[in-house]
Amino acid sequence: MFTCTGYAARDAATPLAPFTFERRDPGPNDVLIEILYCGVCHSDLHTARNEWQNTVFPAVPGHEIVGRITAVGSDVTRFRAGDLAGVGCMVDSCRSCPSCQEGLEQYCTPGFTGTYNSPDAVSGGHTYGGYSTHITVSEDFVLRIPENLPLPAVAPLLCAGITTWSPLRNWGAGPGRKVGVVGLGGLGHMAVKLAHALGAHVVLFTTSASKIADGKRLGADEVVLSTDPEAVAAHAESFDLIVDAVAAQHDINLYLGLVKRDGTLVQVGAPEQPLPVAVFSIIWRRRNFAGSLIGGIAETQEMLDFCGAHNITSDIEIIPIQDIEKAYARMLKSDVKYRFVIDMASLKS
Amino acid sequence: MFTCTGYAARDAATPLAPFTFERRDPGPNDVLIEILYCGVCHSDLHTARNEWQNTVFPAVPGHEIVGRITAVGSDVTRFRAGDLAGVGCMVDSCRSCPSCQEGLEQYCTPGFTGTYNSPDAVSGGHTYGGYSTHITVSEDFVLRIPENLPLPAVAPLLCAGITTWSPLRNWGAGPGRKVGVVGLGGLGHMAVKLAHALGAHVVLFTTSASKIADGKRLGADEVVLSTDPEAVAAHAESFDLIVDAVAAQHDINLYLGLVKRDGTLVQVGAPEQPLPVAVFSIIWRRRNFAGSLIGGIAETQEMLDFCGAHNITSDIEIIPIQDIEKAYARMLKSDVKYRFVIDMASLKS
Repeated sequence: MFTCTGYAARDAATPLAPFTFERRDPGPNDVLIEILYCGVCHSDLHTARNEWQNTVFPAVPGHEIVGRITAVGSDVTRFRAGDLAGVGCMVDSCRSCPSCQEGLEQYCTPGFTGTYNSPDAVSGGHTYGGYSTHITVSEDFVLRIPENLPLPAVAPLLCAGITTWSPLRNWGAGPGRKVGVVGLGGLGHMAVKLAHALGAHVVLFTTSASKIADGKRLGADEVVLSTDPEAVAAHAESFDLIVDAVAAQHDINLYLGLVKRDGTLVQVGAPEQPLPVAVFSIIWRRRNFAGSLIGGIAETQEMLDFCGAHNITSDIEIIPIQDIEKAYARMLKSDVKYRFVIDMASLKS
Repeated sequence: MFTCTGYAARDAATPLAPFTFERRDPGPNDVLIEILYCGVCHSDLHTARNEWQNTVFPAVPGHEIVGRITAVGSDVTRFRAGDLAGVGCMVDSCRSCPSCQEGLEQYCTPGFTGTYNSPDAVSGGHTYGGYSTHITVSEDFVLRIPENLPLPAVAPLLCAGITTWSPLRNWGAGPGRKVGVVGLGGLGHMAVKLAHALGAHVVLFTTSASKIADGKRLGADEVVLSTDPEAVAAHAESFDLIVDAVAAQHDINLYLGLVKRDGTLVQVGAPEQPLPVAVFSIIWRRRNFAGSLIGGIAETQEMLDFCGAHNITSDIEIIPIQDIEKAYARMLKSDVKYRFVIDMASLKS
C-alpha cells in the first residue's frame, strides 16, 4: 500500500476537502497511474451530496481520469511506464457473465466495480476516484490515450464521450441517418460532436437561444429551439435516433413524436423523477424509448481512437481542485461550456 | 349504393340501437361481404362513448369481422363469391408511403382508413364498421380465413390476434426465447396462445389468482401473480420480450425490471394516462420500452394462416347484438373469457 492524497467529501453537507488515504501497490496485472487531469461529472456531485442515498463516506469522486503510467505489474502486457492512460467509470467487473464476455462490462450482471463509491473486491473498503494524485487499476480497465490530443480535454471522453458514443454506435448513427440531440451540456455537446463526425445529419434541440451559435460550431446541421412548437413540429416523424441528454424533468412525448417508425429515442440523461410516457407516443409508430449506460471497455477504446483520428475532444474549462465547490455550484446553474476538468497539479500546491 | 342495417351509437350517452344506412356497391376492386360474426373490442366502446373525443356520430363500431363474400368487382382476382373473408381494423391506406410499401399499412404516414369512424375517401362521410349485415371493402384489405377453424372464434384474431402477433414476430418470439405476457384479457389471452404456439417459453403475469389455471390451459408455461413481489422478483432480468396488454394504469417499471439487457417491453394495451418510466429502469440494462399498433395486412394473413395450421382461435362468448350494452358493461368489469362475438344473424331477428 502507499499513501495517496486527494479531495473527499466527509459527509453530504460538508465541502470537499483534502484527504489522505491508502491505495494498493500494483499487483501483477495492475498499472499505477499518476493522475494529471480529472473531469467533473454531475455524478460526482450527486455522490458527494449523497443524492442517490448510496454514498459511502469519505467519498473521493472522479471518473474521467487521464494521466501517465508510473509503474506496471509483472504480467502487464499492454502498457509500460511512461504511457498515457485513461480510466473511466469502471475499474473492474465479474468478467464472466454474458455481458462481460461480450465486452459490455457496464451491464455486468452482478454489477461492475465503479471507479468510486463501489465495494473494492481487491483491497477491501470502497473505491476512491480520480480527485487524487494516483490510482491503481487492472490493465483490463485502462484505456490507451491518443498522443495527438490535448490531454485535459480528453478526460471528459471517459464518461461524457463514451456515454453518447455507445448509443450512437449501438443504434447506427452514420451517413444517411438523421440524429437528434436534446440538451447542450456535458453529454449533449459530445453527442453533437460525435454524431457529426460519424456522418449523421445532426439536429440539436435546446431551450436556450444563446446556445444556437455554439450548437452549430460544435457540428449540428440544424439547431431547434424546443420552446418553438412550430420549429419542433417541422421535424415530426423524421429522426432515426434521438439522444436525450437532459437530466432534468422534461416532456419526453414531445421528442418521441419526432422519431420515425421503428426509430429510437435513447435516454442518457437521468432525471430524478420518472418520465411520463403517453402510450400513443410509442404505439403509433412502433417507436422505442430506450436507455443506455456509459459503454464497455472495448467501445471506449474505439471511441478514443476515433477521437484521435478525428481530432475530437471535449470543450472544457480547467480548474484547480480548490475550486471544486465553485464548479459544482456553477454546474447546477448549467454555467459551464461544457465540462470542468481539474488540473491535478493543483493538488500539490 | 345499397341499404344496410346495423347497430349504431347516435351520441355518447345513448345505448346502441338499430340503424339503417347506405354502403357502396362493390367497385372493380371491391368485395362485398355478408358479415356473419363481429368481435367486440374495447375500442368499440371507447368510440361509442366518445372517450377519445373523436367520434363522428352516428357510429357503427366493429373491426373484428368475418363473413362470406356475396359479390366481387370485375378486377378482383384473389376472392370469389362464396369465400370466407375477414376484415380487421383497416379498410384502406395511402398505399404509397414507405410504411404502405413495406406492408405496414397500420403505420401509413397520412394515416390508414379505419374500419369505422374514419373519413371515407371512396363514398364520402365516414366509415361504418362491422356491427352490420354487410360491408364493402377493397380486396387488398380483405383477409382469407382458414376453413378449418370455428368461424365465430376467428373474428377476434382480426384485432386482438394481430395486435399481439405483430410484436411477437417483430421482436422474434420463438424457441429459446422467454416471453412475458402482462394481463389476461382479450389481447393477453391471444398473446399467450400465439407465443406458446411460436415455441417461446411463456410466463403470464396476472393480478387475479382465479386466472392461474386458465393461463396454463391457454399455453403459459408459468403464471405469476403480479401482486407477489417475490414471485415477480424471481424473474428479474430474464425476459427477451414482454408483451404488456394492460389498458389500465399500472407500474410499468415493475415489468421493465424483468427484461434482459437489450430486451424489449412492448405496450399493446393503451392506458388513458401516461405511464411514468423511471429512467434507470431502461438505462440500467439498455432496455427498450416500445409500442406496437395492430399489424399490416400481409402479417395479418400470415397470422391467420398460422392459426389455421395450429388450430388457434380466440376463447369467446357469443352474444346477440341486442345484448351489446350488457356486453360493454361486463367488459368494463373484465367479466368476459375472453372476447364477446356478435352473431350477426341476430340482427335479422
